[in-house]
Amino acid sequence: MNEPKRPFSSAEMTQRVNNTKHRMQASGVDLLLVSCPANTFYLSGYDACSYYTHQMLIVSLAEDEPILVVRNIDELGALLTVYMKPENVLSYGDEFVGSESSHPMEFIASIIRSRKLSAKIISVEMDNYYYSARSHAVLTAQLPNSQFKDADRLVNWVRAIKSPSELEYMMQAGKISTQAMHDAVNEIAPGVRQSQVAAKIYYREIYGDDDHSGEYICKPPLLPAGRLSATPHLTWVDAAHKQGELTSIELGACRHRYHAPLARAVHLGRPPARLKDTANILIEGLTAVVESVRPGMTCGEVEGAWRRVINRHGLLKESRIGYPVGIGYPPTWGELTYSLRPSDRTVLKPNMTFHCIPGIWTDEWGLMISESLRVTESGAQCFCEFPRELIVK
Amino acid sequence: MNEPKRPFSSAEMTQRVNNTKHRMQASGVDLLLVSCPANTFYLSGYDACSYYTHQMLIVSLAEDEPILVVRNIDELGALLTVYMKPENVLSYGDEFVGSESSHPMEFIASIIRSRKLSAKIISVEMDNYYYSARSHAVLTAQLPNSQFKDADRLVNWVRAIKSPSELEYMMQAGKISTQAMHDAVNEIAPGVRQSQVAAKIYYREIYGDDDHSGEYICKPPLLPAGRLSATPHLTWVDAAHKQGELTSIELGACRHRYHAPLARAVHLGRPPARLKDTANILIEGLTAVVESVRPGMTCGEVEGAWRRVINRHGLLKESRIGYPVGIGYPPTWGELTYSLRPSDRTVLKPNMTFHCIPGIWTDEWGLMISESLRVTESGAQCFCEFPRELIVK
Repeated sequence: MNEPKRPFSSAEMTQRVNNTKHRMQASGVDLLLVSCPANTFYLSGYDACSYYTHQMLIVSLAEDEPILVVRNIDELGALLTVYMKPENVLSYGDEFVGSESSHPMEFIASIIRSRKLSAKIISVEMDNYYYSARSHAVLTAQLPNSQFKDADRLVNWVRAIKSPSELEYMMQAGKISTQAMHDAVNEIAPGVRQSQVAAKIYYREIYGDDDHSGEYICKPPLLPAGRLSATPHLTWVDAAHKQGELTSIELGACRHRYHAPLARAVHLGRPPARLKDTANILIEGLTAVVESVRPGMTCGEVEGAWRRVINRHGLLKESRIGYPVGIGYPPTWGELTYSLRPSDRTVLKPNMTFHCIPGIWTDEWGLMISESLRVTESGAQCFCEFPRELIVK
Repeated sequence: MNEPKRPFSSAEMTQRVNNTKHRMQASGVDLLLVSCPANTFYLSGYDACSYYTHQMLIVSLAEDEPILVVRNIDELGALLTVYMKPENVLSYGDEFVGSESSHPMEFIASIIRSRKLSAKIISVEMDNYYYSARSHAVLTAQLPNSQFKDADRLVNWVRAIKSPSELEYMMQAGKISTQAMHDAVNEIAPGVRQSQVAAKIYYREIYGDDDHSGEYICKPPLLPAGRLSATPHLTWVDAAHKQGELTSIELGACRHRYHAPLARAVHLGRPPARLKDTANILIEGLTAVVESVRPGMTCGEVEGAWRRVINRHGLLKESRIGYPVGIGYPPTWGELTYSLRPSDRTVLKPNMTFHCIPGIWTDEWGLMISESLRVTESGAQCFCEFPRELIVK
């Protein structure tokens, strides 16, 4: 049979659940309801494109294993991917889907009641994409004797420090990201349709390399060209690349949901002096970050390494320059915990992983050059290996 | 300059806003807050991969145009894509991003107050992916004199009937989807890595065809093979296709965010009789739907055309067989309004568009064969043109 491989050992999965429970205990949380697909995958192994319907992972201090609730047609997919016993996978009927009269959270509340899991304090992921205002309204009405509290990214914080297998998958993803950037740079040229460069990136990210298949990526590659390079989040347009144009390329391949993002900028033809100078400053600042990272530093101190370089050159930048990276489901591969910015006092520890992406945008163009890296015992290691330069073609 | 083309006329955009306002008036809603990226794009033209941070489109009966609020680094991207005047694009500072002490909804509430847009009843998209429980908690606390009401997919319903330009983009997407299915069928063979077939699909969907570039798709193609075909939402695994295996392929290319999904099933080698028989029944049922659709029918009646066929053959199926389709942002291209199922009394009108995807799943395998279609004045028209058969290779 052609079943999905379980990417992690049972021991590692148990450890993840235990780490989560310790954090729950420390926060006085008896029952945690996980809506975030990345957190659900992390704790259960469940990995399917079913998160457009409501689902929930129930983590109770009173139970050994988490309990997963999905839609009925997704139950088999769950059974084939999770680490829990079959009795800890439950599903609701199709009458709850897109219905005006019933909501999946009614079913989930009934499971909490019937399994006697209700607690004085129930923790929910208040600001997650997959925990809607309606979900919260229904759950709180269904479980009126519990007090609801924001889980405050409890599981996201557990995910911050990566295990050897997680790092291995990020290295594999980084190798594919590197190759995808090479493919993009080889393809881009005046007259080549932007969608053709994007298609090449996708092909490589999905095909993978000789050793490993790629997986679906949680957000599209971005390659804004010309004026659009001044905006970080527009996608390609139905037009060709042009001589004299700058393109910022941000991409990130994926292995077992772990992404390794990478950004580089390509200029077609000789770049103007100001652009070249800015690229050099950006690269100097990024390199200062990579070379200064040590366990024990705060995120604010890491940002300081960048800021000192650009300030010396008379540049200013207000937005954050990085965020933790790992498991990704649409719409983000960010872990949504710490940020590389002056006010962030999170202390870096070995095997934390982040994407340092200091963009510099003017009204006319923008530059993004980045590295995904892990904190080692004594410094930092990049997941991708691509020359850190403004690419001129 | 290489700016994004505005895909719709100003007149059409104004019409969309007016249609929305009429529906607001009819529902007693003075102020509508739109979080859904598809609804935001529909009413404003804003199209960027920035929805992983909070943003909001404010539609007030007291204002001619909607007001868009995004993160500061996305303001230029908004100005380059929206149809509104620049003063109706506003942005919040980076200190609101991933912050423990402040939330973008505080900024959005302050805009509502300072522009004097507050209303007795404020309508919000309670069950949308991009309107979190936290967003709702902050907004209601910030605007204590307003009563909050579920918008109940108000804009989604406005989107149900497509304009000639929307239909044109769906036809273009359908052409690319058809070609992507051909590419997938050409590629799939025993020994070929699953990720290679997936990569071919992506390449075609993104590259497009000679006439048009593809755009990023809002969810990955699905091609569960063998045992996994029995599950509708698992993605490819790091393995090769095998002789004797069934693969269900669901994909959907995109033009200007409009998707035209298509599903077909491929069997490598001579299919077992039971599989072939089931495929024939499924195709007969799907064809009965395509041929019976007329304006004035209810969704329940359309489902009946399918149900009569499969019941006659002794098959049962409980889950819905289709949903409206059009603009797609992660995680779905569904419009989240009506469903093709017995209880749905929504009446079909000309230029409504839906994806009819009657899957049949056993414990060992599953079959999906689908059509995306529009209701015409007298029947239905499919967006893709691919033989409706179990493909044997």
